[in-house]
Amino acid sequence: MTDYVLSEKAGKNLKLLRVRKPLIHNITNLVVMNYTANALLACGASPVMAHAQEEVEDMVSLAGALVLNIGTLTPYWVESMLKAGKKANEKNIPVILDPVGSGATTLRTASARRLLDELDISVIRGNASEVLSLAGEGSQTKGVDSIHSVDQARDAALIIAKELNSILAITGKVDLVTDGKTVCRVHNGHELMGMVTGTGCTATVITAAFLAVDDDPLEAAATGLAYFGLAGELAADKAKTPGSYQVALLDALYSIDSDRLKKGAKITSG
Amino acid sequence: MTDYVLSEKAGKNLKLLRVRKPLIHNITNLVVMNYTANALLACGASPVMAHAQEEVEDMVSLAGALVLNIGTLTPYWVESMLKAGKKANEKNIPVILDPVGSGATTLRTASARRLLDELDISVIRGNASEVLSLAGEGSQTKGVDSIHSVDQARDAALIIAKELNSILAITGKVDLVTDGKTVCRVHNGHELMGMVTGTGCTATVITAAFLAVDDDPLEAAATGLAYFGLAGELAADKAKTPGSYQVALLDALYSIDSDRLKKGAKITSG
Amino acid sequence: MTDYVLSEKAGKNLKLLRVRKPLIHNITNLVVMNYTANALLACGASPVMAHAQEEVEDMVSLAGALVLNIGTLTPYWVESMLKAGKKANEKNIPVILDPVGSGATTLRTASARRLLDELDISVIRGNASEVLSLAGEGSQTKGVDSIHSVDQARDAALIIAKELNSILAITGKVDLVTDGKTVCRVHNGHELMGMVTGTGCTATVITAAFLAVDDDPLEAAATGLAYFGLAGELAADKAKTPGSYQVALLDALYSIDSDRLKKGAKITSG
Repeated sequence: MTDYVLSEKAGKNLKLLRVRKPLIHNITNLVVMNYTANALLACGASPVMAHAQEEVEDMVSLAGALVLNIGTLTPYWVESMLKAGKKANEKNIPVILDPVGSGATTLRTASARRLLDELDISVIRGNASEVLSLAGEGSQTKGVDSIHSVDQARDAALIIAKELNSILAITGKVDLVTDGKTVCRVHNGHELMGMVTGTGCTATVITAAFLAVDDDPLEAAATGLAYFGLAGELAADKAKTPGSYQVALLDALYSIDSDRLKKGAKITSG
Repeated sequence: MTDYVLSEKAGKNLKLLRVRKPLIHNITNLVVMNYTANALLACGASPVMAHAQEEVEDMVSLAGALVLNIGTLTPYWVESMLKAGKKANEKNIPVILDPVGSGATTLRTASARRLLDELDISVIRGNASEVLSLAGEGSQTKGVDSIHSVDQARDAALIIAKELNSILAITGKVDLVTDGKTVCRVHNGHELMGMVTGTGCTATVITAAFLAVDDDPLEAAATGLAYFGLAGELAADKAKTPGSYQVALLDALYSIDSDRLKKGAKITSG
Repeated sequence: MTDYVLSEKAGKNLKLLRVRKPLIHNITNLVVMNYTANALLACGASPVMAHAQEEVEDMVSLAGALVLNIGTLTPYWVESMLKAGKKANEKNIPVILDPVGSGATTLRTASARRLLDELDISVIRGNASEVLSLAGEGSQTKGVDSIHSVDQARDAALIIAKELNSILAITGKVDLVTDGKTVCRVHNGHELMGMVTGTGCTATVITAAFLAVDDDPLEAAATGLAYFGLAGELAADKAKTPGSYQVALLDALYSIDSDRLKKGAKITSG
C-alpha cells in the first residue's frame, strides 16, 4: 500500500526545492558532472562543482547539501571530500555519499570506508553490491554471496545501516531506504534508466537536493528517489532509446510538479 | 534602436568563422567541456581542450583565441592558464576570461584577479556579481549591494572596464558590453538559457570564436553574444524543457547563417 | 565488393557484445567521458572510467579491453596509462590507443610514442595526421606533406603498422584498417559525425568493445568501425543538426541489431 503521508511529503519537498533553490555542492566524478548539474537545475536546485582543497570549505559553507561521489576518485579528491565533509558536519549541512564502484578496487572500498569513518554521512546512495562492500571486517553481514532473497537483502541493509549509523538508499528494481529500523521501499523507476550512464549518480544528487529541504533524511531519500523514479517512468513514455531517453529524463524532472509527484510517488513502508 | 552596422558585423563575423574555422584553445571547467566543444563546432570553430603545463604554450600558439574559465579551478590549472595566457599575449592571440563563481570563494576571486593582473585579457565575460567581484580594493565601485538600477550597473561597469583595462561582457536579461567608454547592449536571449548548465560558459566560447575573426574586441563580444542569444530564442521555438532545450540550442547555433543573424541581431549602442 | 565474411563477423561480434557485456576500462579525456560511456552502454558493453594510479591495475584486471586516449593528457595521466597498460599486457587484455592531437604538441607526440614503446598496443585508432605523427625518426614514411593520394596513404599506413607492430585504424571518409599486410576499408559513416565532438573517441571505444569479444584485432577494428559508421548513417536519417545528431547517434548504436549490422556493414579487403 502506497504511503500517502510520504506521497504528500514528496510533493511538499519538491515545492520547497523550487522555492528555496538550495545550492548543492558536488565533489563528484568527471563522467557525470554535466548531467547531474542539469538534473539539479531541472529539479529546482542550484548546482556547483568545486574540488580544490583551497576552496571546498568556503564553497560548502554556502551549500544546502554536499555530494561526495567517488566515481573517478584520486587521493587528492578524497582529501577534498574529507575537508568539505568536515566543514559540512561542523555546520550541520547534510552529506550524501555515492560509493561508486566500491568493492571493485581496493582504493574505492578503502576510500568509501574512510569517508564513513571520518565524516557523519546522512545518506549513502548506491546499488546493493556497493553498499554491501561498505560493511566492515566485523560486520554481521556475510557478504554479497550470502544474499539470495529480497528478505535477506533487507536484513543485511538493516544491519549495515545500524553499523554505519547512516541512512542507506539502495537503488535497484525497487529502491530500499532504511535507517536500520524503519524501511521504506520506492517502487518508481524504469529499466531504461540503466541504459544511461550516471543515473545512479543522478539519484544521488536529487536525494541531496531533497535533503537540503527536509530535516528527516529517511523521508528525504525516499521522496527524492520516488521523484527521480517517476521522472524515469514519464521519460519512458517519450523515448525508448538511450540518447533520447537521457534528454527526456531531464525534461521529465523539470516538468513534474508537486501535484504530479504526489499522485505518482509509490513509496511503501515496513 | 538596433544598430544596423553591428547587425551587419554580426553576420560578417559568423561568415568569417565558418570560412576560417579558427582553433579555440580552452582551459576550462570539467562540467561544460563537452557542451562548449560542441557549441564551438556548431558555430564553425575548431575546439581544443588542453591544460597540461607541458603543452599549453604549444597549443595556444596554434589558436585563434584562448578561453580561460575558472569554473572548477585548482592552483595547477591557474598556473596553466597563466602560462598559456602569457604565450597568447606574446603572440597577440586574444584571451577571454570567464570568472565563474568569482566572489563566491576566496580562491576564485583571488585567481581571477591574478589572471587579470598578470595577463592582458581582451574580454571578461561573466554575470554582474562575478564581474563586480573583480573590482580591486581601491575601486571606485561600491560593490554589488550598492547597485539598485540599470543605470547604476552601467556606471559600475564603465568604471571596472577602465580599471581592469578590458572589455566587459556582462550577460543577463540584457547583455551589456563596454570598454569603459562605449556601451553596447544585446537584447537577444531567452530565459530558458538559464535552465541549462554552462550556457554562460558557452557565451564565453562563442565570444572567443568571434574574437578570433574580429580585431575589434568590443564588436566581437557584442556580435558573438547577439548570435548566441538569437540561438537561444530560436531554440525556445523548438523546446520548452531543459533536456530538449540543451539539444535545440546546439542545433540553432548550427542552423543560423549569416543572413539570419543579420536580421535577428538586436544590438543597441550608447 | 563488400566482404561478406566480415559482414557476418560484424553481426556476430555485436551479438557477442550484447551477451557478454564486457567491462571496458577507459583512461580517457575529460571532454568525451560521458558520451563514450553512453556509447559503450548503447552497444552492449559496460564502461568504467578510472585513472588513479592506485587503482588502474585493479580495474583493468576486471576488464575486457583498455582504452588509452590522450585528448586531455597530463604526465600523471600518462603514467596511469602506462601502469594500466602494463598490467593489461601481462594479462593479455587488448589495449587500444587513441593518439588525440598527436603531432599538434610535443607532449602529445612524445606521450603517444612512449605508450607505443613501452606497451603492446593492439590497435591505434586515429585520423591520418595523428597516425602519421607516430612514425619514428627513422621511419620510411616521409610525413603528411608527402601524401597526395589514397594509394600513398595506404602505403604509408602499411609501413607504419609494420614499424609500430600494431593494427592501424585510420578513420576518415573511408576508414582504413591494416596490420601492415592485410588492408580493410570501411565505407560506412556520415559527414555529420564530424560535427559532434568526440566521435573519433567514440569510434575508439567501440573498437575496444569489439576487441573484447574478437581475438582477431584487425577484424575487430574493421567490424567495430562498420557498426559505428552504420550508426552514423542511420542517425543522419533522423537528424541533420549536431545537437539532435549527437542524440540520434546514441539511439542508433542501441537500435542496430546483429542482422541490421550484417546487412549494413560495408567492409572491403585488399
